[in-house]
Amino acid sequence: MNTKNKIEISFTPDLFSHRQITEDLIVVVTDILRASTAICAAFENGVQKIIPVAGTEQAKAYKEKGYLVAAERDGVVLDFADFGNSPFNFMTPKVVGKTIAYSTTNGTKAINALRPNAGQIAIGAFTNISALSNWLEKQNKNLNIVCAGWKNKFSLEDSLFAGALAELLCEEKGFTSDCDSVTAAMDLWKIAKTDLLNYVEKCAHRHRLRHLMLDDVIEHSFTLDLTKAIPVLQGQYLENIQKNK
Amino acid sequence: MNTKNKIEISFTPDLFSHRQITEDLIVVVTDILRASTAICAAFENGVQKIIPVAGTEQAKAYKEKGYLVAAERDGVVLDFADFGNSPFNFMTPKVVGKTIAYSTTNGTKAINALRPNAGQIAIGAFTNISALSNWLEKQNKNLNIVCAGWKNKFSLEDSLFAGALAELLCEEKGFTSDCDSVTAAMDLWKIAKTDLLNYVEKCAHRHRLRHLMLDDVIEHSFTLDLTKAIPVLQGQYLENIQKNK
Repeated sequence: MNTKNKIEISFTPDLFSHRQITEDLIVVVTDILRASTAICAAFENGVQKIIPVAGTEQAKAYKEKGYLVAAERDGVVLDFADFGNSPFNFMTPKVVGKTIAYSTTNGTKAINALRPNAGQIAIGAFTNISALSNWLEKQNKNLNIVCAGWKNKFSLEDSLFAGALAELLCEEKGFTSDCDSVTAAMDLWKIAKTDLLNYVEKCAHRHRLRHLMLDDVIEHSFTLDLTKAIPVLQGQYLENIQKNK
Repeated sequence: MNTKNKIEISFTPDLFSHRQITEDLIVVVTDILRASTAICAAFENGVQKIIPVAGTEQAKAYKEKGYLVAAERDGVVLDFADFGNSPFNFMTPKVVGKTIAYSTTNGTKAINALRPNAGQIAIGAFTNISALSNWLEKQNKNLNIVCAGWKNKFSLEDSLFAGALAELLCEEKGFTSDCDSVTAAMDLWKIAKTDLLNYVEKCAHRHRLRHLMLDDVIEHSFTLDLTKAIPVLQGQYLENIQKNK
């Protein structure tokens, strides 16, 4: 019996902290609105490396050292930053070949919280789902999909992505699961996928973004396969391992 | 605008620990397989009070003091205990008018973990869902439904109950929600409710119970409205407040 290629989902980073960490584990972190989608867009548009930064003070320190800095809290760009958290921010020649320090409310905090625990950390979004699943298939490891959530709360859009990735891996790539969270996420994805943008209207964070007039990213964020980028944490940097192959 | 009668769901007790606690909050704890279902059965069958006990050592101490003790770990009755965690254990004249000390893997641990935080704690199960919702309607408070889960993991059967209770309260009792976890749980319940016992086959814990030959409780645990009992924590005891009215 193949004991690898098993999937679990952690609906918030806190829930991952109870998992047993093994060497043959890959963690996929997702924060659909908007960090993981923006990180994929950044690599698609030629960013060289991303430094995930948890705190705003740390982000500010990178700015003072001369780095380009992307930083937001609760959806709003911080005053010292070059960019916010929109994937569209990175669609500029200004970023090509650059290293960017990146700090967000939930997404990069989650990456940094997981760092001491997980074997390998990759970034997942609807926009890189097929490239990511092809890469995961080749690793022959177990997988935990960690939803960044919203301030330690369950997030519908992250859970839908987790369900979509789990479905793809179980139906086409030989993965299995005996985890209730995978069953739930896959069933939610089954409801949502036939009319995804309409279903997404239910998401609390979609309404937060609309309130801030930041909801121009919705269609982009729920479009599959806009990039082949696979951001993977290598030491302190996120790098696009697909490009480097 | 009525700021009360808002519902949130915490898919594990840990997720509740991030909530802001207000005085006008009721927490409903659920552990469908099997603690909350068994607690409802115990009161239906004449138990006077239940002492929720977190640790097995504490349960043993109550036994030595002469109490009837219900205690299990991972589904198995502990050797010093009078009962395990099956609702059927309490369907005996032996329990009438008695106070029982009760310790389980997830359910009573959850109650004790929440105790310092929540305004008022009630026990919810499919078997008391209508009585509970009628009582909640009269309280005019906010509600957090806390799923006991399985060792801090998401549990499908607890989440389905949370969805069922949320649907009942939103559709018939004037409650509202802007919480993604409520949307998700209600949508899972919509899928499950048309053929509940068949859907429950997906639950990991249902398979754990089958493996232990303890799955005789499934049909009982997913039957609505077998009792009018509403167990509520009063000091250190769970009491049936419905009976006392």
